[in-house]
Amino acid sequence: MDKQVFNVLKEVQEKTPLVHAITNYVTINDCANILLSFGASPAMCEAYDEVYDFVKLSSALYINLGTLTKEQETAAVLASTSAKNNNVPVVLDPVGCPAMKRKVEVINRIKEVGRIDVIKGNIGEIKFLAGMNSETRGVDSLDNGEDALEACQKLAKDFNCTVAATGEKDYISNGTKNCIIENGSELLTKVTGAGCMLGALCSATCGAFEDKFVATVSAILSMNIAGEKAYKTAKLPGSFKVALIDSIYTLSDEEIWKEGNVTWK
Amino acid sequence: MDKQVFNVLKEVQEKTPLVHAITNYVTINDCANILLSFGASPAMCEAYDEVYDFVKLSSALYINLGTLTKEQETAAVLASTSAKNNNVPVVLDPVGCPAMKRKVEVINRIKEVGRIDVIKGNIGEIKFLAGMNSETRGVDSLDNGEDALEACQKLAKDFNCTVAATGEKDYISNGTKNCIIENGSELLTKVTGAGCMLGALCSATCGAFEDKFVATVSAILSMNIAGEKAYKTAKLPGSFKVALIDSIYTLSDEEIWKEGNVTWK
Amino acid sequence: MDKQVFNVLKEVQEKTPLVHAITNYVTINDCANILLSFGASPAMCEAYDEVYDFVKLSSALYINLGTLTKEQETAAVLASTSAKNNNVPVVLDPVGCPAMKRKVEVINRIKEVGRIDVIKGNIGEIKFLAGMNSETRGVDSLDNGEDALEACQKLAKDFNCTVAATGEKDYISNGTKNCIIENGSELLTKVTGAGCMLGALCSATCGAFEDKFVATVSAILSMNIAGEKAYKTAKLPGSFKVALIDSIYTLSDEEIWKEGNVTWK
Repeated sequence: MDKQVFNVLKEVQEKTPLVHAITNYVTINDCANILLSFGASPAMCEAYDEVYDFVKLSSALYINLGTLTKEQETAAVLASTSAKNNNVPVVLDPVGCPAMKRKVEVINRIKEVGRIDVIKGNIGEIKFLAGMNSETRGVDSLDNGEDALEACQKLAKDFNCTVAATGEKDYISNGTKNCIIENGSELLTKVTGAGCMLGALCSATCGAFEDKFVATVSAILSMNIAGEKAYKTAKLPGSFKVALIDSIYTLSDEEIWKEGNVTWK
Repeated sequence: MDKQVFNVLKEVQEKTPLVHAITNYVTINDCANILLSFGASPAMCEAYDEVYDFVKLSSALYINLGTLTKEQETAAVLASTSAKNNNVPVVLDPVGCPAMKRKVEVINRIKEVGRIDVIKGNIGEIKFLAGMNSETRGVDSLDNGEDALEACQKLAKDFNCTVAATGEKDYISNGTKNCIIENGSELLTKVTGAGCMLGALCSATCGAFEDKFVATVSAILSMNIAGEKAYKTAKLPGSFKVALIDSIYTLSDEEIWKEGNVTWK
Repeated sequence: MDKQVFNVLKEVQEKTPLVHAITNYVTINDCANILLSFGASPAMCEAYDEVYDFVKLSSALYINLGTLTKEQETAAVLASTSAKNNNVPVVLDPVGCPAMKRKVEVINRIKEVGRIDVIKGNIGEIKFLAGMNSETRGVDSLDNGEDALEACQKLAKDFNCTVAATGEKDYISNGTKNCIIENGSELLTKVTGAGCMLGALCSATCGAFEDKFVATVSAILSMNIAGEKAYKTAKLPGSFKVALIDSIYTLSDEEIWKEGNVTWK
């Protein structure tokens, strides 16, 4: 197994990647807190007049399309061009794209003028973007994951990037390398923003690792195993969210090494 | 006593109502989390370009006027027209209307072009909207509740909807049926957004129950009794908010049946 | 030592200052909750059409420049003019000003058309505004505090206000009176928004005390000692944030008296 995956905490905490996030207001606080607990440095910078230059200072740019205001949309598109011009990796979370076609327009615009290194969505979103049928409801996926890895592969090739589709199992592909992760806790689906927080962690690892496939797998393992740890002390969603932040803070590469359940394809 | 009131958890968890919320950024995260814990499916969709179509997918629309941005205002008004055209119930929380006359303009616009099934505010807000004198400060009510049920009745007739005025006691009327609920915890007033979260729960129950009076009573009982449960384990406001989410998650119709203190008028 | 500093809880809880906040969406919920726990009354009012009149009702105005939307910018500038015209104190948190020159433009505009009673920033921000070199990264300060008190004094004279620079030690000056506070917890740096929450508390104390130097010192002592208390029960950042809100709620003037470590200069 690729050892580099399991040095995620060491890498992140040594490099303290500055994650520039343009993200939804539902979970913006949780994203900032989990990044701090992970050892990264969050900066929620989303004013059109500020983002182009701020990207230059950043280790990675996180664009999350949930509750995207018009001002955030213009900032996100501009920031993505700065990321392209300044060689800063971009992680995209296409929240709710199957239900809201505007999201697709924004994604295509970012693809056209900027860059996308990682797309991380739920299985419904990834299958939708890959042109495959899937069942979704509002911003949630009701898909059992059939063909999810195929969807990741297809979308990874279309966008020339790494793609992760999360659900009961998580599927990751960069078009060449592929894996399935079986870790996590059911309670992660009972807390709003577990997906958004995961996107934030992916951005931190993309700011720390050259290989974005490795970065993405590392972030997902971190989140999932922190979720498993949190569940040991907190069985209810309010307490679980608190415990999740605590668990990320104390997470070690050794725990990931020991608990990680990855099948490389 | 109307048994239907006390099947709220069963109804909500069976139907998993999709609650489309346009709500303030102070408590948007809490609203999403409490809806998830209640068994509903939250979707904070508030872009002008997205709301009209998204309402069609939703079980209920929640419009909360706290910190309403201009973009949220345009979206809320448009979404209310979609709710009217697509037969989706609307719950309105008129946050701060006595202190900010713009809120009243927005309420009247929504009434004119859209629909309102439930108005849930604090006693100061409801008395103000009913044209009665009341004491408020900022976004808080300082009213002791005198004439609160009369205010609910008057406003319910004006708007042809169900009205709830919350405070130490809670007053609910649809113009014909009326009740007073005496449950809850003083600590609910020490946590920002208890009212917003209650509005979110009302939206979930309105998405599950045909009768909006029953829906509103059910939601208020759920919140209040969860607050009482939370107070048993957490006496301070930070811990209490965490315990409140946990308590909603474990709440049962039996507990509501046992603890509910409703006087039907 | 000036006893007045140590009656902060008594003063705030007697006066229940109404704090009108225009603040970033990352930590807006935490700011509201800590104000409630402190005994103040928060009102997050930030619509351009509402702020001018709402300031008239308020005890203090808090302007925090983190993630400032264009709409918030226009509202903040207008609100500051209302504060000037209506004699309401203004607390400014210049989040991220070294990294984003737009922030400086907004600060200068507020200075020009409105009023500023307190500037509270991290050491990097205060040194930057005082025209001194400092090391920052994103929205964080990497400065060890050398010359921080000098920076406070210089900026206090420039703006004719009280200035606080926070870090491992906290430095406060109104140009004449000066002090250094050595309290707090390392974990305050692992929770997003500790600085924003402190700015909110400064606004509450500015709404309760005539002397803004005393108000600022009181607020910083309250936050720091609450942080020390919280750390006694919670050693990890998720739990710590919950404990911080609880600790503010139970904080007493006697604890501040006993634990406060202030060096008057």
